[in-house]
Amino acid sequence: MGRPRTPLLDRERIATTALEIVDERGDFSVPQVAKRLGAQTGSVYHHVDGRDGIVELLRERVAAAIDPATLDLRPWDTALEAWARSYRAAFAAHPKAIPLLMTSPVRAPRVLEQYERAVTLLLDAGFAPADVMPLITALENLVLGSALDLAAPETMWELTASAPTPRLAEALSAATEGRADRAFEVGLTGLMNHAREVRAGTGRGQGAGGGPVAP
Amino acid sequence: MGRPRTPLLDRERIATTALEIVDERGDFSVPQVAKRLGAQTGSVYHHVDGRDGIVELLRERVAAAIDPATLDLRPWDTALEAWARSYRAAFAAHPKAIPLLMTSPVRAPRVLEQYERAVTLLLDAGFAPADVMPLITALENLVLGSALDLAAPETMWELTASAPTPRLAEALSAATEGRADRAFEVGLTGLMNHAREVRAGTGRGQGAGGGPVAP
Repeated sequence: MGRPRTPLLDRERIATTALEIVDERGDFSVPQVAKRLGAQTGSVYHHVDGRDGIVELLRERVAAAIDPATLDLRPWDTALEAWARSYRAAFAAHPKAIPLLMTSPVRAPRVLEQYERAVTLLLDAGFAPADVMPLITALENLVLGSALDLAAPETMWELTASAPTPRLAEALSAATEGRADRAFEVGLTGLMNHAREVRAGTGRGQGAGGGPVAP
Repeated sequence: MGRPRTPLLDRERIATTALEIVDERGDFSVPQVAKRLGAQTGSVYHHVDGRDGIVELLRERVAAAIDPATLDLRPWDTALEAWARSYRAAFAAHPKAIPLLMTSPVRAPRVLEQYERAVTLLLDAGFAPADVMPLITALENLVLGSALDLAAPETMWELTASAPTPRLAEALSAATEGRADRAFEVGLTGLMNHAREVRAGTGRGQGAGGGPVAP
Protein backbone atom coordinates (compact mmCIF):
# COMPACT_ATOMS: atom_id res chain seq x y z
CA MET A 1 0.00 0.00 0.00
CA GLY A 2 1.26 3.46 -0.81
CA ARG A 3 1.20 6.34 1.61
CA PRO A 4 -2.21 7.96 1.93
CA ARG A 5 -2.28 11.17 -0.02
CA THR A 6 -2.75 13.82 2.63
CA PRO A 7 -2.46 17.44 1.60
CA LEU A 8 0.78 18.99 2.83
CA LEU A 9 -1.02 22.05 4.10
CA ASP A 10 -4.43 22.78 5.50
CA ARG A 11 -5.72 25.08 8.20
CA GLU A 12 -5.77 22.32 10.80
CA ARG A 13 -2.14 21.43 10.26
CA ILE A 14 -1.12 25.08 10.21
CA ALA A 15 -2.92 25.65 13.52
CA THR A 16 -1.39 22.56 15.12
CA THR A 17 2.12 23.56 14.06
CA ALA A 18 1.76 27.21 15.09
CA LEU A 19 0.48 26.12 18.51
CA GLU A 20 3.45 23.77 18.93
CA ILE A 21 5.80 26.66 18.25
CA VAL A 22 3.94 29.01 20.59
CA ASP A 23 3.92 26.36 23.33
CA GLU A 24 7.70 26.19 23.00
CA ARG A 25 8.60 29.85 22.49
CA GLY A 26 5.62 32.06 23.37
CA ASP A 27 5.42 33.41 19.83
CA PHE A 28 5.64 32.27 16.20
CA SER A 29 6.36 33.59 12.74
CA VAL A 30 4.80 32.43 9.48
CA PRO A 31 8.20 31.37 8.08
CA GLN A 32 8.76 29.21 11.19
CA VAL A 33 5.40 27.50 10.63
CA ALA A 34 6.18 26.96 6.94
CA LYS A 35 9.64 25.55 7.66
CA ARG A 36 8.32 23.05 10.19
CA LEU A 37 5.68 21.91 7.69
CA GLY A 38 8.28 21.60 4.95
CA ALA A 39 6.48 24.19 2.86
CA GLN A 40 7.17 27.60 1.37
CA THR A 41 6.04 30.63 3.37
CA GLY A 42 3.96 31.77 0.40
CA SER A 43 2.08 28.45 0.39
CA VAL A 44 0.98 29.01 3.99
CA TYR A 45 -0.54 32.34 2.99
CA HIS A 46 -2.77 30.52 0.48
CA HIS A 47 -4.61 28.94 3.42
CA VAL A 48 -4.84 31.67 6.06
CA ASP A 49 -5.45 35.39 6.20
CA GLY A 50 -1.90 36.35 7.13
CA ARG A 51 -0.28 36.07 10.53
CA ASP A 52 -3.44 37.48 12.17
CA GLY A 53 -5.39 34.66 10.60
CA ILE A 54 -3.13 32.12 12.27
CA VAL A 55 -3.51 33.91 15.64
CA GLU A 56 -7.27 33.46 15.29
CA LEU A 57 -6.83 29.77 14.44
CA LEU A 58 -4.78 29.47 17.66
CA ARG A 59 -7.49 31.26 19.61
CA GLU A 60 -10.16 28.90 18.23
CA ARG A 61 -7.98 25.89 18.99
CA VAL A 62 -7.25 26.87 22.61
CA ALA A 63 -10.81 28.08 23.29
CA ALA A 64 -12.25 24.85 21.85
CA ALA A 65 -11.30 23.19 25.15
CA ILE A 66 -13.72 25.45 27.06
CA ASP A 67 -16.83 23.40 27.84
CA PRO A 68 -19.64 25.18 25.93
CA ALA A 69 -22.30 23.55 28.12
CA THR A 70 -21.18 25.67 31.08
CA LEU A 71 -22.95 28.72 29.63
CA ASP A 72 -26.22 26.75 29.44
CA LEU A 73 -26.29 26.15 33.20
CA ARG A 74 -28.69 28.14 35.36
CA PRO A 75 -28.89 30.23 37.47
CA TRP A 76 -26.55 32.71 35.79
CA ASP A 77 -23.93 32.67 38.57
CA THR A 78 -23.58 28.89 38.43
CA ALA A 79 -23.03 29.23 34.68
CA LEU A 80 -20.52 32.08 34.95
CA GLU A 81 -18.48 30.32 37.61
CA ALA A 82 -18.41 27.03 35.69
CA TRP A 83 -17.39 28.89 32.53
CA ALA A 84 -14.54 30.59 34.44
CA ARG A 85 -13.23 27.22 35.71
CA SER A 86 -13.37 25.65 32.27
CA TYR A 87 -11.81 28.76 30.68
CA ARG A 88 -8.91 28.59 33.15
CA ALA A 89 -8.30 24.90 32.49
CA ALA A 90 -8.29 25.44 28.71
CA PHE A 91 -5.68 28.20 28.86
CA ALA A 92 -3.60 26.55 31.58
CA ALA A 93 -2.81 23.89 28.96
CA HIS A 94 -1.14 26.58 26.81
CA PRO A 95 0.28 29.20 29.20
CA LYS A 96 2.75 30.59 26.67
CA ALA A 97 -0.11 31.42 24.31
CA ILE A 98 -1.82 33.64 26.90
CA PRO A 99 0.11 36.91 26.32
CA LEU A 100 -0.20 36.55 22.55
CA LEU A 101 -3.95 35.95 22.67
CA MET A 102 -4.60 38.59 25.38
CA THR A 103 -3.00 41.32 23.29
CA SER A 104 -4.52 40.53 19.87
CA PRO A 105 -8.06 41.58 18.91
CA VAL A 106 -10.66 38.81 18.88
CA ARG A 107 -11.92 38.03 15.38
CA ALA A 108 -12.45 34.25 15.41
CA PRO A 109 -16.18 33.64 14.69
CA ARG A 110 -16.48 30.71 17.10
CA VAL A 111 -14.89 32.75 19.89
CA LEU A 112 -17.04 35.80 19.20
CA GLU A 113 -20.02 33.44 19.38
CA GLN A 114 -18.89 32.35 22.85
CA TYR A 115 -18.73 35.99 24.00
CA GLU A 116 -22.21 36.49 22.54
CA ARG A 117 -23.46 33.66 24.74
CA ALA A 118 -21.71 34.95 27.88
CA VAL A 119 -23.05 38.47 27.30
CA THR A 120 -26.55 37.10 26.67
CA LEU A 121 -26.36 35.16 29.94
CA LEU A 122 -25.60 38.33 31.90
CA LEU A 123 -28.05 40.62 30.07
CA ASP A 124 -30.85 38.10 30.50
CA ALA A 125 -29.94 37.84 34.20
CA GLY A 126 -30.63 41.55 34.54
CA PHE A 127 -27.18 43.15 34.43
CA ALA A 128 -27.07 46.70 33.06
CA PRO A 129 -25.42 46.66 29.61
CA ALA A 130 -22.63 48.97 30.81
CA ASP A 131 -21.68 46.49 33.57
CA VAL A 132 -21.34 43.42 31.34
CA MET A 133 -18.00 43.84 29.54
CA PRO A 134 -16.13 45.14 32.62
CA LEU A 135 -17.34 42.11 34.57
CA ILE A 136 -16.43 39.61 31.85
CA THR A 137 -13.02 41.24 31.37
CA ALA A 138 -12.29 41.28 35.11
CA LEU A 139 -13.14 37.58 35.18
CA GLU A 140 -10.79 36.96 32.24
CA ASN A 141 -7.97 38.91 33.92
CA LEU A 142 -8.29 36.71 36.98
CA VAL A 143 -8.70 33.51 34.96
CA LEU A 144 -5.72 34.15 32.68
CA GLY A 145 -3.48 35.46 35.48
CA SER A 146 -4.33 32.31 37.40
CA ALA A 147 -3.73 30.09 34.35
CA LEU A 148 -0.22 31.58 34.07
CA ASP A 149 0.25 31.02 37.81
CA LEU A 150 -0.56 27.32 37.29
CA ALA A 151 2.58 27.15 35.13
CA ALA A 152 4.68 28.49 38.02
CA PRO A 153 6.59 26.27 40.46
CA GLU A 154 4.73 25.05 43.54
CA THR A 155 7.57 26.57 45.58
CA MET A 156 7.38 30.11 44.22
CA TRP A 157 9.28 31.92 46.99
CA GLU A 158 12.82 30.75 47.74
CA LEU A 159 13.80 32.23 51.08
CA THR A 160 17.45 32.76 52.01
CA ALA A 161 19.21 33.37 55.29
CA SER A 162 20.85 36.47 53.85
CA ALA A 163 17.51 38.25 53.53
CA PRO A 164 15.46 37.31 56.60
CA THR A 165 11.72 37.16 55.94
CA PRO A 166 10.21 35.50 59.04
CA ARG A 167 6.59 36.60 58.47
CA LEU A 168 6.69 35.43 54.84
CA ALA A 169 8.05 32.10 56.11
CA GLU A 170 5.16 31.92 58.59
CA ALA A 171 2.55 32.61 55.93
CA LEU A 172 4.12 30.13 53.50
CA SER A 173 4.26 27.35 56.08
CA ALA A 174 0.59 27.92 56.93
CA ALA A 175 -0.45 27.66 53.29
CA THR A 176 -1.75 24.28 52.25
CA GLU A 177 -0.96 22.39 49.08
CA GLY A 178 -2.40 23.47 45.79
CA ARG A 179 -1.05 27.02 46.04
CA ALA A 180 -2.37 28.14 42.64
CA ASP A 181 -5.78 26.50 43.02
CA ARG A 182 -6.33 28.00 46.47
CA ALA A 183 -5.53 31.48 45.20
CA PHE A 184 -7.86 31.07 42.22
CA GLU A 185 -10.72 30.07 44.53
CA VAL A 186 -10.18 33.21 46.62
CA GLY A 187 -10.21 35.44 43.57
CA LEU A 188 -13.20 33.70 41.98
CA THR A 189 -15.23 33.83 45.20
CA GLY A 190 -14.54 37.55 45.51
CA LEU A 191 -15.48 38.27 41.93
CA MET A 192 -18.65 36.16 41.98
CA ASN A 193 -19.82 37.78 45.24
CA HIS A 194 -19.19 41.20 43.70
CA ALA A 195 -21.03 40.23 40.52
CA ARG A 196 -24.09 39.30 42.62
CA GLU A 197 -23.89 42.69 44.35
CA VAL A 198 -23.55 44.57 41.05
CA ARG A 199 -26.60 42.78 39.67
CA ALA A 200 -28.57 43.60 42.82
CA GLY A 201 -27.50 47.24 42.57
CA THR A 202 -25.69 47.05 45.92
CA GLY A 203 -22.13 46.76 44.61
CA ARG A 204 -19.78 48.82 46.76
CA GLY A 205 -17.64 51.07 44.63
CA GLN A 206 -20.23 50.99 41.84
CA GLY A 207 -22.06 54.14 40.77
CA ALA A 208 -23.25 56.71 43.30
CA GLY A 209 -23.49 54.35 46.29
CA GLY A 210 -21.76 54.90 49.59
CA GLY A 211 -18.66 52.81 48.97
CA PRO A 212 -15.21 53.94 47.91
CA VAL A 213 -15.15 55.52 44.48
CA ALA A 214 -12.49 54.43 42.06
CA PRO A 215 -10.19 57.24 40.91
CA MET B 1 39.77 64.12 25.75
CA GLY B 2 39.68 60.38 25.50
CA ARG B 3 36.55 58.32 26.07
CA PRO B 4 35.63 57.92 29.70
CA ARG B 5 36.66 54.50 30.90
CA THR B 6 33.36 52.86 31.76
CA PRO B 7 33.40 49.18 32.46
CA LEU B 8 31.95 47.19 29.57
CA LEU B 9 29.91 45.01 31.88
CA ASP B 10 28.23 45.44 35.23
CA ARG B 11 25.02 44.15 36.73
CA GLU B 12 23.10 47.35 35.91
CA ARG B 13 24.03 47.21 32.24
CA ILE B 14 23.27 43.51 32.05
CA ALA B 15 19.84 44.10 33.59
CA THR B 16 19.07 47.01 31.28
CA THR B 17 20.02 45.02 28.20
CA ALA B 18 18.16 41.87 29.24
CA LEU B 19 15.03 43.93 29.92
CA GLU B 20 15.31 45.56 26.48
CA ILE B 21 15.41 42.13 24.88
CA VAL B 22 12.50 40.83 26.99
CA ASP B 23 10.43 43.94 26.16
CA GLU B 24 10.97 43.16 22.48
CA ARG B 25 10.67 39.37 22.44
CA GLY B 26 9.18 38.17 25.72
CA ASP B 27 12.29 36.15 26.57
CA PHE B 28 16.07 36.39 26.47
CA SER B 29 19.18 34.22 26.39
CA VAL B 30 22.53 34.97 27.99
CA PRO B 31 24.31 34.89 24.59
CA GLN B 32 21.81 37.47 23.27
CA VAL B 33 22.60 39.76 26.21
CA ALA B 34 26.34 39.29 25.70
CA LYS B 35 26.12 39.96 21.97
CA ARG B 36 24.19 43.19 22.43
CA LEU B 37 26.77 44.36 25.00
CA GLY B 38 29.62 43.44 22.67
CA ALA B 39 30.95 40.96 25.21
CA GLN B 40 31.65 37.26 25.42
CA THR B 41 28.96 35.07 26.97
CA GLY B 42 31.48 33.86 29.53
CA SER B 43 32.16 37.42 30.64
CA VAL B 44 28.48 37.94 31.48
CA TYR B 45 28.62 34.92 33.77
CA HIS B 46 31.38 36.63 35.80
CA HIS B 47 28.82 39.20 36.95
CA VAL B 48 25.61 37.23 37.51
CA ASP B 49 24.57 33.87 38.90
CA GLY B 50 23.62 32.35 35.55
CA ARG B 51 20.45 32.95 33.60
CA ASP B 52 18.39 32.71 36.81
CA GLY B 53 20.49 35.51 38.26
CA ILE B 54 19.54 37.74 35.33
CA VAL B 55 15.85 36.86 35.76
CA GLU B 56 16.11 38.08 39.35
CA LEU B 57 17.80 41.31 38.20
CA LEU B 58 14.85 41.80 35.84
CA ARG B 59 12.42 41.16 38.69
CA GLU B 60 14.16 43.73 40.89
CA ARG B 61 14.24 46.24 38.06
CA VAL B 62 10.53 45.91 37.21
CA ALA B 63 9.43 45.75 40.87
CA ALA B 64 11.51 48.83 41.70
CA ALA B 65 8.74 50.90 40.10
CA ILE B 66 6.24 49.74 42.75
CA ASP B 67 5.84 52.58 45.25
CA PRO B 68 7.14 51.14 48.55
CA ALA B 69 5.25 53.77 50.57
CA THR B 70 1.94 52.13 49.65
CA LEU B 71 2.55 49.34 52.17
CA ASP B 72 3.04 51.92 54.95
CA LEU B 73 -0.48 53.31 54.51
CA ARG B 74 -3.16 52.44 57.02
CA PRO B 75 -5.71 50.98 57.47
CA TRP B 76 -4.55 47.74 55.90
CA ASP B 77 -7.12 47.76 53.09
CA THR B 78 -6.06 51.23 51.93
CA ALA B 79 -2.48 49.95 51.85
CA LEU B 80 -3.30 46.74 50.00
CA GLU B 81 -5.38 48.50 47.37
CA ALA B 82 -2.73 51.19 46.78
CA TRP B 83 -0.05 48.50 46.51
CA ALA B 84 -2.17 46.64 43.92
CA ARG B 85 -2.56 49.78 41.80
CA SER B 86 1.15 50.58 41.93
CA TYR B 87 2.04 46.92 41.23
CA ARG B 88 -0.18 46.93 38.13
CA ALA B 89 1.36 50.16 36.81
CA ALA B 90 4.89 48.82 37.31
CA PHE B 91 4.22 45.62 35.35
CA ALA B 92 2.07 47.31 32.70
CA ALA B 93 5.26 49.08 31.62
CA HIS B 94 6.80 45.67 30.80
CA PRO B 95 3.93 43.38 29.74
CA LYS B 96 6.17 40.93 27.88
CA ALA B 97 8.13 40.29 31.09
CA ILE B 98 5.04 39.15 32.97
CA PRO B 99 4.94 35.48 31.85
CA LEU B 100 8.67 35.07 32.46
CA LEU B 101 8.51 36.54 35.96
CA MET B 102 5.24 34.77 36.89
CA THR B 103 6.70 31.36 36.13
CA SER B 104 10.13 31.72 37.78
CA PRO B 105 10.65 31.35 41.54
CA VAL B 106 11.20 34.58 43.47
CA ARG B 107 14.74 34.86 44.86
CA ALA B 108 15.58 38.58 44.56
CA PRO B 109 16.23 39.86 48.12
CA ARG B 110 14.55 43.23 47.55
CA VAL B 111 11.46 41.53 46.15
CA LEU B 112 11.32 38.98 48.99
CA GLU B 113 11.54 41.96 51.36
CA GLN B 114 8.48 43.48 49.68
CA TYR B 115 6.53 40.23 50.20
CA GLU B 116 7.67 40.26 53.84
CA ARG B 117 6.12 43.71 54.23
CA ALA B 118 2.86 42.76 52.48
CA VAL B 119 2.54 39.60 54.61
CA THR B 120 3.31 41.58 57.77
CA LEU B 121 0.59 44.08 56.85
CA LEU B 122 -2.03 41.32 56.60
CA LEU B 123 -0.90 39.32 59.64
CA ASP B 124 -0.86 42.48 61.77
CA ALA B 125 -4.36 43.31 60.46
CA GLY B 126 -5.59 40.03 61.91
CA PHE B 127 -5.70 37.68 58.92
CA ALA B 128 -5.19 34.00 59.70
CA PRO B 129 -1.74 32.90 58.45
CA ALA B 130 -3.32 30.34 56.11
CA ASP B 131 -5.36 33.05 54.38
CA VAL B 132 -2.46 35.39 53.61
CA MET B 133 -0.66 33.84 50.63
CA PRO B 134 -3.86 32.82 48.80
CA LEU B 135 -5.12 36.39 49.11
CA ILE B 136 -1.84 37.96 47.96
CA THR B 137 -1.60 35.51 45.05
CA ALA B 138 -5.21 36.12 43.99
CA LEU B 139 -4.44 39.84 44.00
CA GLU B 140 -1.34 39.24 41.88
CA ASN B 141 -3.28 37.11 39.39
CA LEU B 142 -5.78 39.93 38.93
CA VAL B 143 -3.07 42.62 38.83
CA LEU B 144 -0.88 40.82 36.31
CA GLY B 145 -3.80 39.65 34.15
CA SER B 146 -4.97 43.26 34.08
CA ALA B 147 -1.46 44.57 33.33
CA LEU B 148 -1.37 42.28 30.28
CA ASP B 149 -4.84 43.50 29.32
CA LEU B 150 -3.53 47.08 29.36
CA ALA B 151 -1.24 46.07 26.48
CA ALA B 152 -4.27 44.92 24.44
CA PRO B 153 -6.01 47.14 21.88
CA GLU B 154 -8.82 49.38 23.12
CA THR B 155 -11.01 47.72 20.47
CA MET B 156 -10.53 44.12 21.55
CA TRP B 157 -13.56 42.54 19.83
CA GLU B 158 -13.85 42.99 16.08
CA LEU B 159 -17.39 42.07 15.11
CA THR B 160 -18.21 40.91 11.61
CA ALA B 161 -21.45 40.68 9.68
CA SER B 162 -20.73 37.04 8.89
CA ALA B 163 -21.00 36.05 12.56
CA PRO B 164 -23.86 38.07 14.05
CA THR B 165 -23.35 38.93 17.71
CA PRO B 166 -26.05 41.53 18.52
CA ARG B 167 -25.93 41.21 22.32
CA LEU B 168 -22.12 41.51 22.35
CA ALA B 169 -22.51 44.64 20.17
CA GLU B 170 -25.02 46.02 22.68
CA ALA B 171 -22.71 45.40 25.64
CA LEU B 172 -19.71 46.86 23.82
CA SER B 173 -21.56 50.02 22.81
CA ALA B 174 -22.68 50.52 26.44
CA ALA B 175 -19.11 50.23 27.75
CA THR B 176 -17.40 53.51 28.38
CA GLU B 177 -13.83 54.45 27.50
CA GLY B 178 -10.95 53.02 29.48
CA ARG B 179 -11.96 49.41 28.90
CA ALA B 180 -9.00 47.90 30.76
CA ASP B 181 -9.13 50.34 33.69
CA ARG B 182 -12.86 49.79 34.20
CA ALA B 183 -12.40 46.03 34.30
CA PHE B 184 -9.53 46.31 36.76
CA GLU B 185 -11.66 48.43 39.10
CA VAL B 186 -14.41 45.79 39.05
CA GLY B 187 -11.95 43.01 39.87
CA LEU B 188 -10.15 45.00 42.55
CA THR B 189 -13.40 46.05 44.22
CA GLY B 190 -14.55 42.43 44.32
CA LEU B 191 -11.28 41.19 45.76
CA MET B 192 -10.98 43.94 48.37
CA ASN B 193 -14.57 43.39 49.53
CA HIS B 194 -13.86 39.68 49.81
CA ALA B 195 -10.63 40.33 51.71
CA ARG B 196 -12.59 42.37 54.27
CA GLU B 197 -15.06 39.49 54.62
CA VAL B 198 -12.28 36.92 55.04
CA ARG B 199 -10.67 39.03 57.75
CA ALA B 200 -14.01 39.40 59.53
CA GLY B 201 -14.59 35.65 59.29
CA THR B 202 -17.71 36.12 57.18
CA GLY B 203 -16.24 35.27 53.79
CA ARG B 204 -18.66 33.23 51.74
CA GLY B 205 -16.99 30.15 50.37
CA GLN B 206 -14.40 30.21 53.16
CA GLY B 207 -14.12 27.45 55.73
CA ALA B 208 -17.21 25.80 57.18
CA GLY B 209 -19.64 28.67 56.59
CA GLY B 210 -22.89 28.36 54.70
CA GLY B 211 -21.64 29.45 51.27
CA PRO B 212 -20.59 27.33 48.33
CA VAL B 213 -17.61 25.15 49.01
CA ALA B 214 -14.83 25.09 46.46
CA PRO B 215 -14.24 21.67 44.89
